[in-house]
Amino acid sequence: MADKQATIETDAIVIGAGPVGLYQVFQLGLLGIKAHLIDALPQAGGQCVELYADKPIYDIPGIPFCTGQELIDRLQEQIKVLKTPSHFNQEVTLVEKRADGRFDVQTSQETFISKVIIVSAGVGAFKARKLALPGIDAHEGTQVFYKFKEAKQFAHQDVVINGGESAALEAAIQLAGIAKSVTLVHRRDVFKAEESLIQRFQKLCSEGLIKVQVGQVTNFKASGEKIISLEVADFHGQTHHLPLDALLPLLGISPKLGPIADWGIDLENKQVLVDTEKFQSSTTGIFAVGDINTYPGKKKLIVCGFHEATLAAYGCAALVYPGQAIHLQYTTTSPKLHEILGVTPQA
Amino acid sequence: MADKQATIETDAIVIGAGPVGLYQVFQLGLLGIKAHLIDALPQAGGQCVELYADKPIYDIPGIPFCTGQELIDRLQEQIKVLKTPSHFNQEVTLVEKRADGRFDVQTSQETFISKVIIVSAGVGAFKARKLALPGIDAHEGTQVFYKFKEAKQFAHQDVVINGGESAALEAAIQLAGIAKSVTLVHRRDVFKAEESLIQRFQKLCSEGLIKVQVGQVTNFKASGEKIISLEVADFHGQTHHLPLDALLPLLGISPKLGPIADWGIDLENKQVLVDTEKFQSSTTGIFAVGDINTYPGKKKLIVCGFHEATLAAYGCAALVYPGQAIHLQYTTTSPKLHEILGVTPQA
Repeated sequence: MADKQATIETDAIVIGAGPVGLYQVFQLGLLGIKAHLIDALPQAGGQCVELYADKPIYDIPGIPFCTGQELIDRLQEQIKVLKTPSHFNQEVTLVEKRADGRFDVQTSQETFISKVIIVSAGVGAFKARKLALPGIDAHEGTQVFYKFKEAKQFAHQDVVINGGESAALEAAIQLAGIAKSVTLVHRRDVFKAEESLIQRFQKLCSEGLIKVQVGQVTNFKASGEKIISLEVADFHGQTHHLPLDALLPLLGISPKLGPIADWGIDLENKQVLVDTEKFQSSTTGIFAVGDINTYPGKKKLIVCGFHEATLAAYGCAALVYPGQAIHLQYTTTSPKLHEILGVTPQA
Repeated sequence: MADKQATIETDAIVIGAGPVGLYQVFQLGLLGIKAHLIDALPQAGGQCVELYADKPIYDIPGIPFCTGQELIDRLQEQIKVLKTPSHFNQEVTLVEKRADGRFDVQTSQETFISKVIIVSAGVGAFKARKLALPGIDAHEGTQVFYKFKEAKQFAHQDVVINGGESAALEAAIQLAGIAKSVTLVHRRDVFKAEESLIQRFQKLCSEGLIKVQVGQVTNFKASGEKIISLEVADFHGQTHHLPLDALLPLLGISPKLGPIADWGIDLENKQVLVDTEKFQSSTTGIFAVGDINTYPGKKKLIVCGFHEATLAAYGCAALVYPGQAIHLQYTTTSPKLHEILGVTPQA
């Protein structure tokens, strides 16, 4: 292993491996554009996997039903043949235009030079919002969990959940009756979720299966290696000590645009402003597709992101192959596309 | 049966039941907009079914492979729950704006009043280009076929194909060696198809399995009820008589915009000019999606039509529910959408 890795030169860098980023790789591939895919998470999927891996999606055209994870699996299957190098667990830390018109791109671990950049980063670098309590990090993965997976892991435990949105309420509902006790701490007694979810939550509260403590988390107490209680201050100045075996801070995701805000491209309400012809930002060579962009009529729907990625690929092609005419070809009939896709219909 | 059918009043009329028209019905349905679907063909599918029912499509997001027919089947499955009334075998003959802002719409058989119209008519009313020979119509379906389905139907027959594009060459290739003879008549000896298809065609010509006759079809000879030969004039003034059992005029589809050209909406090269916010034409209330529209950056791809249909649905909603705020809801979480879709996740 070298001390310093070599700079990777490429046609395109796709930042964000959610459904739209994966389809972006596909459309670039059809145009013969070599891409590298970067994501801050350890795997592909973005919000689809982080927020609704096992939840249903009904509005993808031609797919009457799939879960978030299934959609990602299908898209990964579709792009497999392109063998696009993926760089997971890496956040982009720097993007700078070079004198030759290309971009220097640095991540936490690697250095790239790319002709074009397509940002498909959804709500931004996708990180769970952390509890800001000194020393709490040491307990992550043993008693503190920023992601709730299954209730039976917490059977017969005293569980404290911190948060007031869907993820927090859902975890509480699933844990009710399985954990020894379930206490939800939220800074106020108003919740941000679908009405039906709130109703199910409140029914379990009224049955005594979930307790609610309104207040701010201010500290925790440990005995040796183990957290024993959480300190919550209410708005009457009183401090509550909630004993616990497990703490689930489900505070939502941090919509951190991260360094994108420093690239000098035009933003509007933290979204990247793009045209609707190529989905290019105010900087030539930087494109934005999916939930992170905005334009007149924008709807944050996956089906719209697929279209944006398609036109962005043609916008990229004009820069990657300057002066060359880019012809629209159909996967049904084009032998060139069949070769790229590794298929031989009617051979 | 009444002499005159009652006028049908509706929120929306979708003209064209190809993939984009079907998805348009879905997106309208999610917004609670009642639609009627009209198509000139006897079934849903448009070009997908007419031109590539059994051919592969590789670029629908999340569907690595499907045929044209399979894509249509999947979309029909997706919209089934909406029970949208379909009116097949009907061409729209008149569209006129009423004093109340709605539209009078007439087809060959029915009369509608609709708040909005979405045109998803692809290349236009989808008709096979017919041979203009007096008396030939009487033989359609017995000896004259405007659509080629399978070669074995013509085993041991003398077959004449008329045309010079993919459909004609493909039929010739499939019939070679199965029919008794295969003759392709085309007005010149240049063909319009993928290079690889032309090469396969020419190889079979060089092997004597396909004959080519350059010239114009001018007449046919019949004996009793039966066509016995086709008359072809070449460009040296000579007339050829080609004996035949079956005649396949595969002259392509007629991209007939039809009466749309008379609606007073702005066209550009026979495409409907639309904005990219709502995909609305120059006439408020008339939208156009899919291959029939044009705007800066337009690519004639199904994936783009799906996006256009989605934003058009929101554009329609603003007119169908004037003054009401239309909120974006997600099929993953919205109980209202679950009710429309007839699903009960986590019930």
